[in-house]
Amino acid sequence: MIGAVDVGGTKIVVGVADQDGRLLAQDRFATLPERGPNVVIGEVIAMLNALARGQGEALTAVGVGCVGPLDLPNGAIMNPPNFPGWSYVPLRQPLEKALGVPVRLDNDANAAALAEYRLGAGRGAEIMVYTTISTGIGGGIVVDGRLLHGVGGGAGEFGHQTIRADGPRCGCGNRGCLEVLASGTAIVAAAKRAIADGRGAGILEQAGPAGLHAGHVAHAAAAGDAAAVEIWGQAVEALAIGLGNVVTTLAPDRLVLGGGVAQTGDLLLLPLREALARHVRMVPVDRVDIRIAEHVAEAGIYGAIAVGLQA
Amino acid sequence: MIGAVDVGGTKIVVGVADQDGRLLAQDRFATLPERGPNVVIGEVIAMLNALARGQGEALTAVGVGCVGPLDLPNGAIMNPPNFPGWSYVPLRQPLEKALGVPVRLDNDANAAALAEYRLGAGRGAEIMVYTTISTGIGGGIVVDGRLLHGVGGGAGEFGHQTIRADGPRCGCGNRGCLEVLASGTAIVAAAKRAIADGRGAGILEQAGPAGLHAGHVAHAAAAGDAAAVEIWGQAVEALAIGLGNVVTTLAPDRLVLGGGVAQTGDLLLLPLREALARHVRMVPVDRVDIRIAEHVAEAGIYGAIAVGLQA
Repeated sequence: MIGAVDVGGTKIVVGVADQDGRLLAQDRFATLPERGPNVVIGEVIAMLNALARGQGEALTAVGVGCVGPLDLPNGAIMNPPNFPGWSYVPLRQPLEKALGVPVRLDNDANAAALAEYRLGAGRGAEIMVYTTISTGIGGGIVVDGRLLHGVGGGAGEFGHQTIRADGPRCGCGNRGCLEVLASGTAIVAAAKRAIADGRGAGILEQAGPAGLHAGHVAHAAAAGDAAAVEIWGQAVEALAIGLGNVVTTLAPDRLVLGGGVAQTGDLLLLPLREALARHVRMVPVDRVDIRIAEHVAEAGIYGAIAVGLQA
Repeated sequence: MIGAVDVGGTKIVVGVADQDGRLLAQDRFATLPERGPNVVIGEVIAMLNALARGQGEALTAVGVGCVGPLDLPNGAIMNPPNFPGWSYVPLRQPLEKALGVPVRLDNDANAAALAEYRLGAGRGAEIMVYTTISTGIGGGIVVDGRLLHGVGGGAGEFGHQTIRADGPRCGCGNRGCLEVLASGTAIVAAAKRAIADGRGAGILEQAGPAGLHAGHVAHAAAAGDAAAVEIWGQAVEALAIGLGNVVTTLAPDRLVLGGGVAQTGDLLLLPLREALARHVRMVPVDRVDIRIAEHVAEAGIYGAIAVGLQA
């Protein structure tokens, strides 16, 4: 039985899965990092043991998907911005000591990529590119069943390609990154600017009182709202340039799109395919099988399961 | 003994090498494709046999590096633009039949990448990106000793990333490709335009009567010619965006630069490193070992040797 731990800044999800990667049970708790690493890790261990006991089976390995930055060779978290007060926190070692099974760690984007490869829309691909288009834009690359990590574990940072060198400043320090042009955050910010300018009535109509997200902009664009058409079109164009560059570089046979923005389905896929065909001329882009990820809301815990299956 | 065949549009170079990839002898002839495939392939076979006899050893395998497009699974050339009158020409099969040894084929950019990995500046890398900056811009990716081919053999087409979506039209049909902004051809064209406008006296001074190439622009820029500073600076900036995007995607531990433009050495490397550090923030670019290729003038024949060593 595989144990899985999805470590996020606000909550930690713990689960157990069978050898086929099926999630059998899960539980969660608020991270509350101010309690310090020992208390948080202790709670993870207790919850893993309780879930395994509940299934009447012993753990054989544990996978951890974790917000970065990570020291992958040593299985530790390094100065995570979401965990104030934590500096260098070993995770793998205390978990292995307490549980007596091998523990494997990877960052959340890589883990989600591996989950799609092993348990989702990336099955059977030779070169799979997974990208999550959400608050930010990240991803991972699986070649012949193996995640590419690269120096500093940095492979798959698709969101920080330079798309418009004279574009807006990105949080990373560069200008005109894909993330600052086409993430859910960027789309929502553009929509709010349009609304503040008295445009985008159709976006407000889609959003209702519950709060605006990128999907509302996509639907308003489909319904013909001029501001939404412009904002969604620009985001799709930036994605086509960025993902097109990745396709031109890697010629993947599978491109899996995850994250909230990809949940718009054909509202994204159809214009994206058209724009990719304009930008990608040297790789047969019609042979790149583009799919929406299978595990989106539960990408974290399935990512941890996929990492655990490798342990 | 490895046989090596470098098939280009104007000439074909044939060589023999030992098992360590050392080139022992070579010969060449003008392709003259109008003679038809049978005559050209017959000449390749005769030359390989003659070179092997000259060394007193039998061939054990043959590698072929070839201008594309290729049908890699079947070892054939497909409608090559440089070979008027050739349509679909099998290469591997007739060579294997005549020589009685395994023959392996790859496109010239991939072959050159493999040569740098096995026999040059890419030795020992885990993820190696090789790019040639020459008439065009292309390259290849070697992961754990294996070339990535991707769909249609298209992996490594770095020169056709979109760098400026509103930039000039590229031969491939896209706009603002890296190749149309920063290849040797693009640099020379920009220099000629500057000279036609009465600028770039320093470039003319470097070039002398023998004809202008990108290296002259680099040297004129170093000597302070204003037009050259601008042209070289823009090319380096485009390369930093394009290669920066590749670094952000793959986080390679080694980046090998080949082709004539890279022969400018530090005139390219120093400003390129500075510009990469501006654009690449999420991958530790200081841990990407950037080197000039070892086999530049003879990239073709060493590429064929490297392909042959895999056969």
